[in-house]
Amino acid sequence: MSSKGSVVLAYSGGLDTSCILVWLKEQGYDVIAYLVRERPRCLLVSVCLPASAQVASLSAHCYSFKPGFSSLKPGDGGVSAEAPGALYASWPLSLPTSSSGFLFPQVFIEDVSREFVEEFIWPAIQSSALYEDRYLLGTSLARPCIARKQVEIAQREGAKYVSHGATGKGNDQVRFELTCYSLAPQIKVIAPWRMPEFYNRFKGRNDLMEYAKQHGIPIPVTPKNPWSMDENLMHISYEAGILENPKNQAPPGLYTKTQDPAKAPNTPDILEIEFRKGVPVKVTNVKDGTTHQTSLELFMYLNEVAGKHGVGRIDIVENRFIGMKSRGIYETPAGTILYHAHLDIEAFTMDREVRKIKQGLGLKFAELVYTGFWHSPECEFVRHCIAKSQERVEGKVQVSVLKGQVYILGRESPLSLYNEELVSMNVQGDYEPIDATGFININSLRLKEYHRLQSKVTAK
Amino acid sequence: MSSKGSVVLAYSGGLDTSCILVWLKEQGYDVIAYLVRERPRCLLVSVCLPASAQVASLSAHCYSFKPGFSSLKPGDGGVSAEAPGALYASWPLSLPTSSSGFLFPQVFIEDVSREFVEEFIWPAIQSSALYEDRYLLGTSLARPCIARKQVEIAQREGAKYVSHGATGKGNDQVRFELTCYSLAPQIKVIAPWRMPEFYNRFKGRNDLMEYAKQHGIPIPVTPKNPWSMDENLMHISYEAGILENPKNQAPPGLYTKTQDPAKAPNTPDILEIEFRKGVPVKVTNVKDGTTHQTSLELFMYLNEVAGKHGVGRIDIVENRFIGMKSRGIYETPAGTILYHAHLDIEAFTMDREVRKIKQGLGLKFAELVYTGFWHSPECEFVRHCIAKSQERVEGKVQVSVLKGQVYILGRESPLSLYNEELVSMNVQGDYEPIDATGFININSLRLKEYHRLQSKVTAK
Amino acid sequence: MSSKGSVVLAYSGGLDTSCILVWLKEQGYDVIAYLVRERPRCLLVSVCLPASAQVASLSAHCYSFKPGFSSLKPGDGGVSAEAPGALYASWPLSLPTSSSGFLFPQVFIEDVSREFVEEFIWPAIQSSALYEDRYLLGTSLARPCIARKQVEIAQREGAKYVSHGATGKGNDQVRFELTCYSLAPQIKVIAPWRMPEFYNRFKGRNDLMEYAKQHGIPIPVTPKNPWSMDENLMHISYEAGILENPKNQAPPGLYTKTQDPAKAPNTPDILEIEFRKGVPVKVTNVKDGTTHQTSLELFMYLNEVAGKHGVGRIDIVENRFIGMKSRGIYETPAGTILYHAHLDIEAFTMDREVRKIKQGLGLKFAELVYTGFWHSPECEFVRHCIAKSQERVEGKVQVSVLKGQVYILGRESPLSLYNEELVSMNVQGDYEPIDATGFININSLRLKEYHRLQSKVTAK
Amino acid sequence: MSSKGSVVLAYSGGLDTSCILVWLKEQGYDVIAYLVRERPRCLLVSVCLPASAQVASLSAHCYSFKPGFSSLKPGDGGVSAEAPGALYASWPLSLPTSSSGFLFPQVFIEDVSREFVEEFIWPAIQSSALYEDRYLLGTSLARPCIARKQVEIAQREGAKYVSHGATGKGNDQVRFELTCYSLAPQIKVIAPWRMPEFYNRFKGRNDLMEYAKQHGIPIPVTPKNPWSMDENLMHISYEAGILENPKNQAPPGLYTKTQDPAKAPNTPDILEIEFRKGVPVKVTNVKDGTTHQTSLELFMYLNEVAGKHGVGRIDIVENRFIGMKSRGIYETPAGTILYHAHLDIEAFTMDREVRKIKQGLGLKFAELVYTGFWHSPECEFVRHCIAKSQERVEGKVQVSVLKGQVYILGRESPLSLYNEELVSMNVQGDYEPIDATGFININSLRLKEYHRLQSKVTAK
Repeated sequence: MSSKGSVVLAYSGGLDTSCILVWLKEQGYDVIAYLVRERPRCLLVSVCLPASAQVASLSAHCYSFKPGFSSLKPGDGGVSAEAPGALYASWPLSLPTSSSGFLFPQVFIEDVSREFVEEFIWPAIQSSALYEDRYLLGTSLARPCIARKQVEIAQREGAKYVSHGATGKGNDQVRFELTCYSLAPQIKVIAPWRMPEFYNRFKGRNDLMEYAKQHGIPIPVTPKNPWSMDENLMHISYEAGILENPKNQAPPGLYTKTQDPAKAPNTPDILEIEFRKGVPVKVTNVKDGTTHQTSLELFMYLNEVAGKHGVGRIDIVENRFIGMKSRGIYETPAGTILYHAHLDIEAFTMDREVRKIKQGLGLKFAELVYTGFWHSPECEFVRHCIAKSQERVEGKVQVSVLKGQVYILGRESPLSLYNEELVSMNVQGDYEPIDATGFININSLRLKEYHRLQSKVTAK
Repeated sequence: MSSKGSVVLAYSGGLDTSCILVWLKEQGYDVIAYLVRERPRCLLVSVCLPASAQVASLSAHCYSFKPGFSSLKPGDGGVSAEAPGALYASWPLSLPTSSSGFLFPQVFIEDVSREFVEEFIWPAIQSSALYEDRYLLGTSLARPCIARKQVEIAQREGAKYVSHGATGKGNDQVRFELTCYSLAPQIKVIAPWRMPEFYNRFKGRNDLMEYAKQHGIPIPVTPKNPWSMDENLMHISYEAGILENPKNQAPPGLYTKTQDPAKAPNTPDILEIEFRKGVPVKVTNVKDGTTHQTSLELFMYLNEVAGKHGVGRIDIVENRFIGMKSRGIYETPAGTILYHAHLDIEAFTMDREVRKIKQGLGLKFAELVYTGFWHSPECEFVRHCIAKSQERVEGKVQVSVLKGQVYILGRESPLSLYNEELVSMNVQGDYEPIDATGFININSLRLKEYHRLQSKVTAK
Repeated sequence: MSSKGSVVLAYSGGLDTSCILVWLKEQGYDVIAYLVRERPRCLLVSVCLPASAQVASLSAHCYSFKPGFSSLKPGDGGVSAEAPGALYASWPLSLPTSSSGFLFPQVFIEDVSREFVEEFIWPAIQSSALYEDRYLLGTSLARPCIARKQVEIAQREGAKYVSHGATGKGNDQVRFELTCYSLAPQIKVIAPWRMPEFYNRFKGRNDLMEYAKQHGIPIPVTPKNPWSMDENLMHISYEAGILENPKNQAPPGLYTKTQDPAKAPNTPDILEIEFRKGVPVKVTNVKDGTTHQTSLELFMYLNEVAGKHGVGRIDIVENRFIGMKSRGIYETPAGTILYHAHLDIEAFTMDREVRKIKQGLGLKFAELVYTGFWHSPECEFVRHCIAKSQERVEGKVQVSVLKGQVYILGRESPLSLYNEELVSMNVQGDYEPIDATGFININSLRLKEYHRLQSKVTAK
Repeated sequence: MSSKGSVVLAYSGGLDTSCILVWLKEQGYDVIAYLVRERPRCLLVSVCLPASAQVASLSAHCYSFKPGFSSLKPGDGGVSAEAPGALYASWPLSLPTSSSGFLFPQVFIEDVSREFVEEFIWPAIQSSALYEDRYLLGTSLARPCIARKQVEIAQREGAKYVSHGATGKGNDQVRFELTCYSLAPQIKVIAPWRMPEFYNRFKGRNDLMEYAKQHGIPIPVTPKNPWSMDENLMHISYEAGILENPKNQAPPGLYTKTQDPAKAPNTPDILEIEFRKGVPVKVTNVKDGTTHQTSLELFMYLNEVAGKHGVGRIDIVENRFIGMKSRGIYETPAGTILYHAHLDIEAFTMDREVRKIKQGLGLKFAELVYTGFWHSPECEFVRHCIAKSQERVEGKVQVSVLKGQVYILGRESPLSLYNEELVSMNVQGDYEPIDATGFININSLRLKEYHRLQSKVTAK
């Protein structure tokens, strides 16, 4: 059978995308698996494949933008110079093969963690982006980041197709595909979970397991939780399964990124977070003096501190783009601290009326990100405007992190619009109290007119 | 000296308004003191007057809308049937007199606690009202409630003037006066802190103390905190003094309405809060079965539970209406629980697009309340619209209250728009996955066109 | 062949829907043709069928809500008492038949003109609804009106299907179908122009003509314009064909509802339009005293006057819901006059801040109507809020209509918020000019603070 | 008497500011008169002073930023090289003197016409700025332009005061003063019409006339209209006097900038207006080939054409910033053409969703300009964002100007997002009609859910 062409598959290493990978080959496509690494230190945890699986010519095609990655090949120890610790302890990398041998023509492993933080999370922090007043958009932000890289690979490799394992009822399919179409309109997306020939064949997990067994796809040995999870550097979501009943409480053992607040330490960590242009540039642990100054490191450090203190859990019902309500439980540790700290330094340094306009733009931004329109003219426009508003959002915020909560303790800034003398109750400053009389009187003019009319109407 | 007429003074019993009271008499006004009671159980705590002070004809003019109040007179024990506990333990009511005798022509004691909850706090809960993303508007909501009653008394008593002790730099002066002018445009407001003849005479606390001593005004014996406080049933604010430096952390002993979260109980209280039309109608403590069903009682109970667990503290810099930034520390215990619980039941029962429009109205509402425009045509209009949006916001939310945090555990509703079958990952339901393909394709059309243009532009 | 069930077809009498009608029968459906009459006096103009066509049992199923319609039957003269003039001059009603005889099981002729005006156009006038700042939404408003009735018939007749002739690239398909699904979720829509078996068979007008000839469908004898038109009581649109080139100017003979402004009368008509609750209740021609007081009549009269003077033409490029830009030329005679007159009386009677909030709601309303969401929870909500805002929009506006323009000449109202004495340059009234000083000073406070910061930043 | 210091007076040459000028001298100020010229060719029309008046040392202090102005001195012919025509025909400049001689220490004549067009009118055109849906903001835009220059002179000359003749009930006082305080917070504004010592002395026009006579101030000989006027390069406003009754129609002879539409030419002028970055860069009269390419010239040419055809008249009731409603009649000839032409080219080239966000910003911009906040952080921010949105608003619009109306005839652009093939009714293009089915179905999902709930509720 002649090939239908190449397809770049967003491959997670889980059962679904492993089966999709083999199925795509069955359908006649050359498959390029693309493993995204927006989560440093936990890249391959979910792959869980036996070392015996065969992988062909991995090193030959391995893209990498970090020094430590360039020479990875099967059998390597996989420790990256850049991210200390047991980064690649799970190597030698083992990927599924068909029983007959070479499964993959190509595998790309992309480290997008830094660009995820700087190009996606930072704008969200600047925007104070909350979807429907609660959701910090952890998954939504990751999707355009992943899909952008996927398109990049497709373009470099001359692949006409991209594929993903997102379901047909969710938001992720939209986020993936709108990104693809925005950046490469001619690309074709293969979404198996929306293709009757796929979803009629694989009606449940058992069908996938059976298929995996037949095709030598390693099957996860850990028992599956009765809910689904999706994790990245910023957050983790839990949904489906027993959580579909919105009254069911989250089971105790569900959470993985944050400690149970009831069991968290009894003493807070006190952090000083420094912002420049609305973005954190330095985090200092006041007690032990620990300091982090690069985006990725400080974000990971905040994840660690917040996680230890149980910060960032929510349980919500939200409105999906396709129009249904769904229930999700999320953990967003570092994001939660930064949301609060940024709000505070922004309020301290930004003019009231600019803030009000920016608040409206932030609402729009959150909606656009949630619905998958990151790569759209309107989202580009909104990001530009919000970035403009952040030019003078600069200063330090002191926060206490304790038992699931983030408390603002104080703030300082060289660019503050706060005027201690002006606001003082003890000092008059340049302020003339009599002016307030005129201000109030003029503001009441319209109200008095309205009262006049009401009296007239009532008199009738 | 013939009288200049009657003035109804919003009298708190503190040093400032006690001095203003005497000063107004000096200026030739007949003063009607008006003590507002929007805080059940703590009405007269702040008055702190010696029993020897003489009060004339109090009972004759005492307005009351609650049964237990109608027969109050000097010397009464002051226990109200309606609000159990040591409500009036501080009676006999003792109010400042001049050394020469009768100070007051009239005193009105108004219990507005129920109307404060039902007519002011409930609409704020329905609106999810947050000023500048953080402030639940505790003080802002109380002002129009107090001023409305003050105007009512002025109208009944034929007083042409009202007076208050608010400073000339704050928001409260605006909130008081806009309410007065809205409801009674012909009324004149006397704001001593904006009158040079007053503020030049009383340049600091010492001047007031001296004046009080001279005029037999009882002086608070408790040492004054180095900050100012303002409390009502919903919240308490701390500002000024040492808090004026926005970097200074709140001193440990500052908080009065909530327990230190670090010292709060290690086990949560689990509450079930039931809403109807967006308003709480029943609170049940799941553990001990305690239940409250009237607005005032359930609100006070939530204050108690939240206070015990340290819920509702914030430290913010906000933008005052008159244009300066100020720093405030607030506690809003019950309000914080209700904010979260209401958000949840609303998201569960309200259509996505209605919610988005209502969110915009809620932002407007918060701004109007903060700036003192409660009694304005636009705020009336917004309240009407928001109330309309709440008609089907009904159901029960389970929350856990622990260590300063409120966690949503689950929710149920007879009017939910959540469809468990539709959203299920395991059941297809009526949903056709193929429709999502068309949905995404059409949504991408515009993005593809934009890409086409960009390519054209770049090609040039 | 056993029937697949009944389908209610929105039938215009034109070539497309006539062919669709026959094609649906071919496919095995029982067809109920539904002719909507939202344009009084021109109901059947477009049918143009030969008198020889056979129609079965029409009278038996003819619904009618107007007295004059109840006894219509084939062969009747068809003059309605209610709408004088040559209303049914084209009767006996002749509808297409197959050569073999009975084509229609049923025909419904619905007069929705009054409900179109009162339930759809009036709310749009109250909202000052303009899509993208220019389009008065003439077509958009008609669609939910037509589709609602179509669903009503389907429900009464037990039909499971509805069908329409809208194209697959336009807005109308969305408007029709969202209305159907909103009101009757279980209904199935048959949209032939989106079905490959239909659009691959009928690739152009010639294919339709050929098919019509084969099936005895009467073919319009008038030569088709090189553009398409869609008309209703409120407006007419011209698009497609030679107008698809956005640079091409409208040909001189294109317009049908309005006179060429250059050739319009040299003297204006002066109208006095009276509003109550934001809706016109009386129109008087000041010169000749003509008066109209019912909604339908006054709207038709305004169409006549505006049309005579060339009022209501626009040529725009707009953004369709599905994401493409299209070019349309529209005439909306009465709607244009009412838009301007209503703006004026609203500005005269509505509080400034209420107006600003209502303006935002009106923008949302326009978007919802354009995109087909008339029958949606959010549009219901917005209409409710806007109607509330109109309670006191009452009074008379004098307008001059001349050469394509509507000029406001003056206005009066018993509920105006305009205060001639207050605004007078000659009378001081209650106004204290000194108050403006305080007002300005307080408003400048924030600006001065911003300047202070800028100086500080620059100084660095 | 020693001088109180220098005051820069915005001097119009009319009775009011002439009297203010002398009065300020009386009060002990050194007065610097500042005559603004934002209206080329009609600078001194309103001065109307007899040639015999003495003016001292004018040339010595005459600022000018245009080459042609630098050498102006009393007695000069005053023809500017830059603005051909009878620009300074009224020279020698004659300004009021006291009978005793030197009235003015200094006179500054500033030509701000180009910066008015480029820095103030162009951003308004880009913003499609309309206050309350109708007013093109002609006066509002001029004020910050005038006041900015006034502050500039004050700063150069070391004057601590600025003064203006705006009334205490209007918007202009706010616009002047907020600009002053924004740009120079330490400056003091002297607003005589808000000072009791001034307005109690000059209670009406007669008092001013008397004063003028006493002080040798030339009195305008032309009879004053029973309304007041204010003109600049962009527009003219008529208000007050007989126009204060909102029912009174504008008298026939009132208009000065536009021809009566009824008497305007019977044949249109056809213009092609070319935009780049949302700003007009070229205007061509299609009939006679006249072309203008500089901002000032093309704007003046459009004023001429629009004026000839009676374009740009409105009669409105608007809401002033200080809270009262006022009635104004305005002419904005060129602005009206540009508003329409810009809307059209913007719709043609801007993405739908960007447009929607920009529309919101434009509404905000209009409000800020109207209320005098041009020089504010929020207005700067909004202008920046709007300018960003205009980067690709480029192309040519053809318009017809006739009898008071502007008709769009067609448009073209190298950066259009319009895709003729995509939208075509005859060509399928890349478009898949079947996608619309999915799009509609998914959009209906939410509506069906809402219907399901309603049925459930009703069933109860």
